[in-house]
Amino acid sequence: MKILLKIAYVGTAYCGYQVQPNGVTVQERLNEATRAVFGVDCDVVGCSRTDSGVHARAFCATIAEKGKPYLQTTVPVARVPRALNVHLPDDIAVLDACLVPDDFHARYGVRAKEYEYVIYNAPERDPFLVGRAWHIPKPFTDEDVAAMNVAAAAFVGEHDFSALRDGDDGKSPVRHIYSASVVRQGERVLFRVAANGFLYHMVRVMTGTLAEVGRGKIPPEEIAVRLAACDRSLFGATAPAQGLYLDRVFYPEKYFE
Amino acid sequence: MKILLKIAYVGTAYCGYQVQPNGVTVQERLNEATRAVFGVDCDVVGCSRTDSGVHARAFCATIAEKGKPYLQTTVPVARVPRALNVHLPDDIAVLDACLVPDDFHARYGVRAKEYEYVIYNAPERDPFLVGRAWHIPKPFTDEDVAAMNVAAAAFVGEHDFSALRDGDDGKSPVRHIYSASVVRQGERVLFRVAANGFLYHMVRVMTGTLAEVGRGKIPPEEIAVRLAACDRSLFGATAPAQGLYLDRVFYPEKYFE
Repeated sequence: MKILLKIAYVGTAYCGYQVQPNGVTVQERLNEATRAVFGVDCDVVGCSRTDSGVHARAFCATIAEKGKPYLQTTVPVARVPRALNVHLPDDIAVLDACLVPDDFHARYGVRAKEYEYVIYNAPERDPFLVGRAWHIPKPFTDEDVAAMNVAAAAFVGEHDFSALRDGDDGKSPVRHIYSASVVRQGERVLFRVAANGFLYHMVRVMTGTLAEVGRGKIPPEEIAVRLAACDRSLFGATAPAQGLYLDRVFYPEKYFE
Repeated sequence: MKILLKIAYVGTAYCGYQVQPNGVTVQERLNEATRAVFGVDCDVVGCSRTDSGVHARAFCATIAEKGKPYLQTTVPVARVPRALNVHLPDDIAVLDACLVPDDFHARYGVRAKEYEYVIYNAPERDPFLVGRAWHIPKPFTDEDVAAMNVAAAAFVGEHDFSALRDGDDGKSPVRHIYSASVVRQGERVLFRVAANGFLYHMVRVMTGTLAEVGRGKIPPEEIAVRLAACDRSLFGATAPAQGLYLDRVFYPEKYFE
């Protein structure tokens, strides 16, 4: 068995999830904490890379002994969150842990992921949301938010999303969006989107595009047409990383029976 | 006329509001920003001292030219928030500004203040609330929260609160609590309290006491009796500063007609 962790982190201080040479990552911190708790080097496999500065409310990652498909330990799984949290910095926390079979893969096994993008829409900044939302001072009216929601609905379904990614990593640009909506909650405007997978910067390009719709620069009924044109330049600028939260990750139920 | 500011700040980096020799304070930052915007040294008078690490969602402060009861400026009052925010660090923001008469006093004119104390009540820490809530891992049941709410109700009214302050600064210990309640919102347990004024650490001692009630250490019906005994040792430990938010400040309406 492997251990599957549910993790929350404030991404501000990290160069994303995955270990890389140019800065501190969340995975590095997990590598250190798992070594401290289990006494062996571990493979910590995450459900996703996340960009530098992006946050997670329920990131999933598995722990196995390095080079093996399982972890042998005397630590009861219920005690794993507390044990790891002692060795993790304050801006990362393991919320939950459970056992999964050796063949469970935290990344390739993902069936769907849900993100939330937080726009803070008030004239002056909220000090509590600095680094945790995209501040758009000019107020969106109820009609603007309704238009953004219509535009979001146009993303739903299976489409070629070439026009909504930055760069081309050679992977298939076809993704299936299960749900996408925009709602106002007080001074926050929230964009929630779930899909079987996302291309590079895809949620952030979607958000930048929705902001353009809210500002009246792109008519919402244009989204479907422009999507079909597969042309990045027809969409909005990439929204900043700081407003993005990985919210939920879905795996096949069979692993949790 | 003076300018009355509504300010929000994350208190983590500050030794409270008021200028003092041993560390950076919010008032110091406001002194610097007002000097930069208005070109003169200003008296920035706050509605309250706040403890080191305490936050504010709507702190009030007036600006007048140093030694004078008014400020002369060509900056339109509607532009003051933006102008000051450019010169303030990210963890302080002016949300609003209006004009008030020369005789308005931000501190002595306060009729009531409302605080919120945020307890984060979940087994593992929430990285997004580190420094912004008091983490109590052991879950309070609905009955525990109900008992805390009964205890909070016992604070309401005009009482001698000697037993609910740390130290004795010689001031009258009589205060009038207008409202006090405890509610659960998901994994947060919120204590809200409004009064005509608060003694040193009073909200934090109240919160520490409510936590003891929630843990079954103090029966809620004991609060009134213990309060009458004027004995600090009969109440709970002082809750940490990081969970406390100054939420609202009330002045006589005549100033805003």
